[in-house]
Amino acid sequence: MCSPAVINDVQREFSRRRFITATTLGTAGAMIVSHSAGAQQSPVRLPKGFRTVHDLTHTFSPRLPVYPLFTPVRIRQRFDYQKDGFFANEVTFDEHTGTHMDAPLHFIAGGLSADRLPADRLIAPLAVVSIAARAAKDPDTLVTVDDLLAWEKRHGRVPPGAVVAMHSGWDMKDTSHTPGFSEEAARFLVDRRDIVGVGVDTLSLDAAVAKKFVAHLAFLGAGKYGVELLANLGAVPAAGATMILGAPKHEGASGGPVRALAVA
Amino acid sequence: MCSPAVINDVQREFSRRRFITATTLGTAGAMIVSHSAGAQQSPVRLPKGFRTVHDLTHTFSPRLPVYPLFTPVRIRQRFDYQKDGFFANEVTFDEHTGTHMDAPLHFIAGGLSADRLPADRLIAPLAVVSIAARAAKDPDTLVTVDDLLAWEKRHGRVPPGAVVAMHSGWDMKDTSHTPGFSEEAARFLVDRRDIVGVGVDTLSLDAAVAKKFVAHLAFLGAGKYGVELLANLGAVPAAGATMILGAPKHEGASGGPVRALAVA
Repeated sequence: MCSPAVINDVQREFSRRRFITATTLGTAGAMIVSHSAGAQQSPVRLPKGFRTVHDLTHTFSPRLPVYPLFTPVRIRQRFDYQKDGFFANEVTFDEHTGTHMDAPLHFIAGGLSADRLPADRLIAPLAVVSIAARAAKDPDTLVTVDDLLAWEKRHGRVPPGAVVAMHSGWDMKDTSHTPGFSEEAARFLVDRRDIVGVGVDTLSLDAAVAKKFVAHLAFLGAGKYGVELLANLGAVPAAGATMILGAPKHEGASGGPVRALAVA
Repeated sequence: MCSPAVINDVQREFSRRRFITATTLGTAGAMIVSHSAGAQQSPVRLPKGFRTVHDLTHTFSPRLPVYPLFTPVRIRQRFDYQKDGFFANEVTFDEHTGTHMDAPLHFIAGGLSADRLPADRLIAPLAVVSIAARAAKDPDTLVTVDDLLAWEKRHGRVPPGAVVAMHSGWDMKDTSHTPGFSEEAARFLVDRRDIVGVGVDTLSLDAAVAKKFVAHLAFLGAGKYGVELLANLGAVPAAGATMILGAPKHEGASGGPVRALAVA
């Protein structure tokens, strides 16, 4: 991301221009934020100007589809108004259900757990790559390097520190056929671009018919995180939005349900 | 918050001033964002200029103290690399453990559950009211109306749509003596100020020695949310920061663990 020298320059500019009134809000560009609560001080960016909050999170219910092997969330009332003076549930989930994060630890022994991801990686420019038209005809289709290059031709290079999300329009229909990232596209993003994570609107970074977890291994093996079962990606601009991830922070998390928002 | 007329005015101003360059980032004031994913269109605000991300979330572990009646979180490994090709846990929690939200439903039958709170209420100006010096001598002390007025004398009126957080410096020591909000302070905030929620760095909005849930009932009864067991409030500026709450979205949630961030 930005070097400290660039940040100092912008900070000086910031101080110098304080007099400008609040109506100059909506100018082009992004503001830069830096992270206080860890060793890292890499800057992150928030967009400025008029913004809409998109909720990219499905309501986490027992009726959501889950990846094979996992159990749907269980929500059980334990306390009630009459008996206890208040109402409360107990909740049990497998970490990789609902709209959720995959931390590197999910596939990589010794990888970063979700609770140890630096907080500045949770606020990131969001690039939405839509393959929905193709996926409507072929639910096994993959995001390719050509899809990424076509996105860049329209919107410019994937911004540093971005989350790149596949919008397939899958919509939770047939869990045995879901699009995903190709191994080549995953390697392109981790080797040739500067991303913090990736997202999909399906149950898995890999297509359901993939024989191996090639996309998972490429992304998580490079220390990136994944976010699966995102909602409302079709409503977010392809470029220019910022994702804010309310990531899980339970100890040793291989992942877990997130509250995913985008401001755009 | 702002009326639609005000928003339209500012939007026009925004369009008119688009030509101003990106170096005007750090001007005074706040940008306004509006919420797309629900019936409400009330604007929310993000601060602009140079920003630091503070993580206000404790790592959610079985060693965190819990309010009496609740059970600490249980994290149980269910999948492993050798046997399954990946690692994953099952997690079970009572909703009101860890750094967590109280939705109105927690105390109010028919109140809003956490999954139904409009997403724009999750991004809010943060006012931190410190009573740490007094609490160090008296762990049963309460936030009073005078504390709120003293904060306003220094920092100006509590901003519209704010979260007001008590910083008591309690630090998870003695769970039988923890500060909280007085009933009068709670009523002042819900009746005479425009807040979306409140926060505390203790286990409860009410002091541990309180005989009734007077603060809970005043806040949640007015449709406000609470956030309990916040971390790092001492590091956040008393005024000017923005809280971003990765709130729980499981169905019918009376609350649940949050990822609480502040940009400042």
